Amino acid sequence: MSAIDNRTVNHQVRLASRPIGVPTAGNWQFTEEPVAEPAAGGVLVKVLAISLDPAMRGWMNEGKSYIPPVAIGAVMRAGGVGIVVASKHPAFAVGDHVAGGTDVQEYVCLTADQTSRSGLTKIDLRLGTLSQWLNVLGMPGMTGYFGLMDVGQPKPGETLVVSGAAGAVGQTVGQLAKIKGCRVVGIAGGPAKCEWVVKELGFDACIDYKQPAPAGVMKWDAVREGLKQHCPDGVDIYFDNVGGDILDTVLTRIRRKARIVICGAISQYNATGAVQGPKNYLSLLVNRARMEGIVVFDYAARYPQAIAEMAGYLKDGRMKSREDVVAGGVRAYPDTLNRLFSGENFGKLVLQIAHP
Amino acid sequence: MSAIDNRTVNHQVRLASRPIGVPTAGNWQFTEEPVAEPAAGGVLVKVLAISLDPAMRGWMNEGKSYIPPVAIGAVMRAGGVGIVVASKHPAFAVGDHVAGGTDVQEYVCLTADQTSRSGLTKIDLRLGTLSQWLNVLGMPGMTGYFGLMDVGQPKPGETLVVSGAAGAVGQTVGQLAKIKGCRVVGIAGGPAKCEWVVKELGFDACIDYKQPAPAGVMKWDAVREGLKQHCPDGVDIYFDNVGGDILDTVLTRIRRKARIVICGAISQYNATGAVQGPKNYLSLLVNRARMEGIVVFDYAARYPQAIAEMAGYLKDGRMKSREDVVAGGVRAYPDTLNRLFSGENFGKLVLQIAHP
Repeated sequence: MSAIDNRTVNHQVRLASRPIGVPTAGNWQFTEEPVAEPAAGGVLVKVLAISLDPAMRGWMNEGKSYIPPVAIGAVMRAGGVGIVVASKHPAFAVGDHVAGGTDVQEYVCLTADQTSRSGLTKIDLRLGTLSQWLNVLGMPGMTGYFGLMDVGQPKPGETLVVSGAAGAVGQTVGQLAKIKGCRVVGIAGGPAKCEWVVKELGFDACIDYKQPAPAGVMKWDAVREGLKQHCPDGVDIYFDNVGGDILDTVLTRIRRKARIVICGAISQYNATGAVQGPKNYLSLLVNRARMEGIVVFDYAARYPQAIAEMAGYLKDGRMKSREDVVAGGVRAYPDTLNRLFSGENFGKLVLQIAHP
Repeated sequence: MSAIDNRTVNHQVRLASRPIGVPTAGNWQFTEEPVAEPAAGGVLVKVLAISLDPAMRGWMNEGKSYIPPVAIGAVMRAGGVGIVVASKHPAFAVGDHVAGGTDVQEYVCLTADQTSRSGLTKIDLRLGTLSQWLNVLGMPGMTGYFGLMDVGQPKPGETLVVSGAAGAVGQTVGQLAKIKGCRVVGIAGGPAKCEWVVKELGFDACIDYKQPAPAGVMKWDAVREGLKQHCPDGVDIYFDNVGGDILDTVLTRIRRKARIVICGAISQYNATGAVQGPKNYLSLLVNRARMEGIVVFDYAARYPQAIAEMAGYLKDGRMKSREDVVAGGVRAYPDTLNRLFSGENFGKLVLQIAHP
């Protein structure tokens, strides 16, 4: 029934303590336990790759959020892709590729109830690669799709700005907005990412927020200068993945009836003091504009339709994707996660757990 | 043709310099000039009362906002009510009561072009008193009406919180939300205002943000405690007139899909440093909530319909209004304006310019 026996070991990463600021080695614990056979209605999945998401930092904190925090001692929450290696569930067969809540471990053994709660679904590798199923066809893609379409409500000819443009959500949002007829300006860190966003993804421009001040210029805000140059008539939609100073600068450049999609605030996730609130929020009043949050899970019922649309764009070449795949298995998780916060990743950050 | 002759003097208040922080005497200049006869198509109005609005503080600043700043040396901008004393305009006759942009002066002589630009309209004193035409039937009432109905979108059974509850916009918003079937909790400063808001206006509760900490309590946030008590299930609509700490506290108590109407931020208008941004804005994300600005002028085409509705509520007693009418004429303007920022006014603040 499976290639698993009771000598197969499942290596796991558990949350040992709650971080203050950037997570450190002491916040993690590596454990192992034998792989179990699934119970009636359950499924055993060998995890092939997991998605590394900025939201993970929030899940490590105590306190109420849009989902409960990861408990101390629990396997760290993660979305991933894998292959079914044992099944007592009618909808899944050995050899099926699946995506869902795998957590940071090599095997996930789900009960019947957990199988539905983890959102486990079969994935079709003809529509996209394993890592694309963690990117454009996965949670980041869905977040970008519904954040843009339902909250941003793009109209042809409008100007959209997206921060974290080279990241998982940002690349989807910008390309989709181009497909929907917008002018698209990205914000990303460093010339390599900016060049890729424009040349490969086809954004109209990309602002390097790390660009140093020109010689002799004392007061320098690279984002402000970039927006003046690339969005001289202002911004209709700002899709915000970063918060902080960049959000504040964009707020000074929005147009009447602008929509600001609050998708994340990676600049603030490791803040040990208070989060930096947008001091220019009264621009919402002056410009009759809107700032609205999005949580992707609300749109679960519409994922299949969005995936079909996005797979079509992948196929016809209008949507490209880039994943930054790190080999190394579960042990590499802590260091790989921190690459998100330093902005080192280039494209959707994926940790490979096993060879397919 | 009029009771005016060329010996009649028009006393005016002009903006002498731009304030830093709370306006002082040095920011104002008192001038007088003879009253002119209106030119062809123009109207001469004797000003009876003017509205004092928090927005006036913003108009005194340099820089772009939703309307241009008042120029140095210009008569201070104000909305007011008056009586036509001379007319060469077909739509206005001597003796008509009117409302519009009168500015802070005793007479306003409008050219044909200015008559339309100032939004001069005839008002019917059978629908409301002169001061009600500056309150429920005027700009504050219209701001409350469209901010609540179009941006807040109240549904029966929802919980609405409004700050500045005893102020001009706040009293309208709370009473209208009650009429529309909401549970309504006000926030106001001091027990007298809070009692009036509940007993006279019929709000379900009113939180006194100035309430001192009970004996022995070190860390005290009166608004937080009040919201816990009066909105145990959270807030669906927050109508914000004040910004600052109160906005931040309410953000921690919003419900899923909440709407925050950004109407003003009186706590911040005299800030000499940066405006205090809402550090809890990520609650918008967690709660899939929306924060949106409103500027009343956008709804000018629908004022007549809203006025008719509000006049009906005044007539049937479901809407009450309170104005804090200060006698004293134009000379009293500077001190009266500052009462808004200290929260001394109780009800819509009106400066009487002349006896009707």
